[in-house]
Amino acid sequence: MSDMNDIRDAPTVPRLEGDPNAPLDLAAFKQAFRRHAAGVACVTARQADGTPVGFTATSLASLSSVPPLATFNMARTASSWPAIAETERVIIHTLGARNRAIAERMSGPNALRFTGDHWHEGPHGLPVLNDVTSWMVGHIIERVSVHNGAVIVVQIEEGGLGDEDEALLYHERMYRVPGPEAAL
Amino acid sequence: MSDMNDIRDAPTVPRLEGDPNAPLDLAAFKQAFRRHAAGVACVTARQADGTPVGFTATSLASLSSVPPLATFNMARTASSWPAIAETERVIIHTLGARNRAIAERMSGPNALRFTGDHWHEGPHGLPVLNDVTSWMVGHIIERVSVHNGAVIVVQIEEGGLGDEDEALLYHERMYRVPGPEAAL
Repeated sequence: MSDMNDIRDAPTVPRLEGDPNAPLDLAAFKQAFRRHAAGVACVTARQADGTPVGFTATSLASLSSVPPLATFNMARTASSWPAIAETERVIIHTLGARNRAIAERMSGPNALRFTGDHWHEGPHGLPVLNDVTSWMVGHIIERVSVHNGAVIVVQIEEGGLGDEDEALLYHERMYRVPGPEAAL
Repeated sequence: MSDMNDIRDAPTVPRLEGDPNAPLDLAAFKQAFRRHAAGVACVTARQADGTPVGFTATSLASLSSVPPLATFNMARTASSWPAIAETERVIIHTLGARNRAIAERMSGPNALRFTGDHWHEGPHGLPVLNDVTSWMVGHIIERVSVHNGAVIVVQIEEGGLGDEDEALLYHERMYRVPGPEAAL
């Protein structure tokens, strides 16, 4: 899953020591984030030449509701970065359990991500994935580059709600659905 | 839950129309994000006067692994914002199912968030919550204010891993644990 956040893929590591002068153990950082579950989203856009691009993201978060703002993170080494760096707008999709195959496709080989009838052209000619639980047009208002990463801030302009479904999660290298209420 | 992202708390709304000139229906934006599940984290810091502050966040995301960077979002109207605006470092905690009470406490009345023995003093005098699945010292390297929100970028410097547990999720206004694998 080349564009998907790879910090979840670390082996189990021993407990970190609390020495503030010790360099951070990268494996421990990865392990800490592997203990954090995430919802699964897809982001799509078009390159300057019109080619559709997209990727599966576990970093989608809301930032405010008035105005409607959201963020996602990506590596600037990702195949979709040149498009995201230039496009004015993206489509953000929230995925349900029925969209697992789309999540896998959009994190698999680039050449296959838009091969098929699983998407259509939406507002501004942007690629909209079919049968998702929601999709939103995000106007990019900030791109914050930090080292090899970028935080993208979008203002949501319009969108649509699909049929309801269980949310799709990514946790412990597995696509899952939410389970029961946590015991208090 | 005053600091917790409130865009999950919208009633069901009808499907949005695709008219690109229509103003976004706020309720639809909230509904779209309610379909996205999120892992639960807590962020803590100290005010300039030493008072501990903290809040429950559903926006924690990794940004890169080399160097180890993460982001979280918050409202600049949140009670913890003055501290986050000034502090050099925060503690980010990932929560497990056994930490549901901490998640509720850290999103409840401010006066009760640090009343009790559920935390201890960690590196740089920062408040570390007890028995979490992981905690990380985050050195704030960017604060990006957008309207009333802020995106905080931190570089992780050190931390510790607690006992393993099921991850704590927040979805459909409920604290939950991850369920089975999504069917393909």
